[in-house]
Amino acid sequence: MYKWIWFLIFSPMLLAALKTQMELPWSALPKTPPIPKDNPMTPEKVYLGRQLFMDPRLSKDGTVSCNSCHNVMASGGDNRAFSAGVGGKLGGRSAPTVWNSAFHTVQFWDGRAISLEEQAKGPMINSSEMGMENHQSVVDRIEKIEGYVSQFKKVFGVKEITIDKVAKAIAAYERTLITPNSPFDRYAKGEKKAMSAQALRGMNTVIEVGCVGCHTGANFNAPEGLAMGEGFYQKFPTFTDNEYVKKYKFEEDLGRGGVTKNEEDNHFFRVPTWRNIALTAPYFSNGSVKTLEEAVKVMAKVQLNKDITANQVADIVEFLKALTGKRPKQQMPSLPPDPAGMSLVDG
Amino acid sequence: MYKWIWFLIFSPMLLAALKTQMELPWSALPKTPPIPKDNPMTPEKVYLGRQLFMDPRLSKDGTVSCNSCHNVMASGGDNRAFSAGVGGKLGGRSAPTVWNSAFHTVQFWDGRAISLEEQAKGPMINSSEMGMENHQSVVDRIEKIEGYVSQFKKVFGVKEITIDKVAKAIAAYERTLITPNSPFDRYAKGEKKAMSAQALRGMNTVIEVGCVGCHTGANFNAPEGLAMGEGFYQKFPTFTDNEYVKKYKFEEDLGRGGVTKNEEDNHFFRVPTWRNIALTAPYFSNGSVKTLEEAVKVMAKVQLNKDITANQVADIVEFLKALTGKRPKQQMPSLPPDPAGMSLVDG
Repeated sequence: MYKWIWFLIFSPMLLAALKTQMELPWSALPKTPPIPKDNPMTPEKVYLGRQLFMDPRLSKDGTVSCNSCHNVMASGGDNRAFSAGVGGKLGGRSAPTVWNSAFHTVQFWDGRAISLEEQAKGPMINSSEMGMENHQSVVDRIEKIEGYVSQFKKVFGVKEITIDKVAKAIAAYERTLITPNSPFDRYAKGEKKAMSAQALRGMNTVIEVGCVGCHTGANFNAPEGLAMGEGFYQKFPTFTDNEYVKKYKFEEDLGRGGVTKNEEDNHFFRVPTWRNIALTAPYFSNGSVKTLEEAVKVMAKVQLNKDITANQVADIVEFLKALTGKRPKQQMPSLPPDPAGMSLVDG
Repeated sequence: MYKWIWFLIFSPMLLAALKTQMELPWSALPKTPPIPKDNPMTPEKVYLGRQLFMDPRLSKDGTVSCNSCHNVMASGGDNRAFSAGVGGKLGGRSAPTVWNSAFHTVQFWDGRAISLEEQAKGPMINSSEMGMENHQSVVDRIEKIEGYVSQFKKVFGVKEITIDKVAKAIAAYERTLITPNSPFDRYAKGEKKAMSAQALRGMNTVIEVGCVGCHTGANFNAPEGLAMGEGFYQKFPTFTDNEYVKKYKFEEDLGRGGVTKNEEDNHFFRVPTWRNIALTAPYFSNGSVKTLEEAVKVMAKVQLNKDITANQVADIVEFLKALTGKRPKQQMPSLPPDPAGMSLVDG
């Protein structure tokens, strides 16, 4: 009658699962991300942000929206090594996914923005992204579109449109872009069968191998409890005496050093999230690695100086696939018309 | 007690309204467009079409989707004179709105496609639009995306993906892009207050001036009852001895003549719809006219050799604004992932 008890006690896999459950270095994705006190979320603001996020009129030639490189109908990125901006110009880094970016404590690969609000303003005036001359020209465009003018007034209570209000609306929308209920999240909440046996092995492997030194916390990219804006960086590449560093040109990007101009920050990067990573190929800040399998192998060698086996790679990839969450259903926004076409001719 | 009867009998405006109501050369937009027998609509096919319509992976460098130039979150066009394709290359004509295009009997400004299915295949392999090498390369891309492969099989019942199936799915989606319930449609259905007095004056003016010679039928661009594929063309410009033809370069585009190579077809164009015209600036096939007011004045002169007054222009514009319909709410599709990023590298 009690035979199953013996199975329970002696099943090593179950024990391991229980053990790691007790000590998981991650947690399920919270339902809501941190929200800055000076930018409370309202449905109207989120909708305005969704419109702005989707609106190519925020770019110089009217062809590039935030969504062009951070496609919320897909991976939240663009699956390119370098993103293409106005006129097909290529940027210098791969677009990180916007999904769950609300949980990062800093933004961009080099952490140069301490909030989504600050981040949103960057690409608009980057010549190889949206290419606007300056932030005032963005505001000028928006002010020519009657439907936006009335919405800004309603959302912010004052008539004046500023680039900070534009950024606040976009950031408020981005804080809705979260993907809960991945197999891992369901597992972490107690649904023991949510992950396959192979994914569970992979989970244990990333703990054993040491990946969790950096890829920790609810977003798999920073310890819990860091203040927003604080940032969690790691040197990359750490170990350079291997075949990969040269092959994938990992030493070309100064990362955080390019921002702070401190030599000791060279090659430091914000630790990227693992969430939805199965959807966000190609990998690394220069998009040089096309498959997740190769990315896993490379990381073990370059960051931990470990040669992991093909089986370990396969298990880890299976675990990473279990981090693909459920994207919320979203209605397409209706972009306010610009009947005279004036926003594009700027005059 | 029956005083209001006298008002009813003698009110000239009401009489005029009743009269035009009896003789309207247009009709309310039908709820559903014509559907070809060999491409029945199913929810799964429409959804697949919506994904394909939104998917930039159908373009050479992965930056341009159907929606880039036919933005269904806005006017269904791009509010540009010439649309921008891959690498920012400009095409030679202004993108017509996709809204209600299902009611056209032919597609493109020059009518060179006799169905939405045929139209959908054009831009994919146009070097200044989506820029794919040929239709097989489009199919090759799609075949690398597992989520599409399974959907095509489900939708079409066979495993093989062909460009015709791709086009059928896109066309099925486009047949959902209709905008009923404009003020005019409500008026035509008997809601007498749906249009303003000025819009009603404008409606009578376009009849009196003669615009309805071409802009007739439910879609304001062809007589009712034309078979799909038949086409309804008009010469443009008709009258060339005026200031506009040179100013706006109206004689540069051969229109239908460029397709048929018959000299007598030179400068013939498919009559464009008036529906949602208030949203689709700039105007004409070369997008040379920025405002609706100017477009109305130009058309009266160039097509009917009439100098209409500023008041007539204002009234007509008000009527045209009453042709802006209700766009259906649409959920953003979820684009199937391409984890290895292989669809972009083509190899």
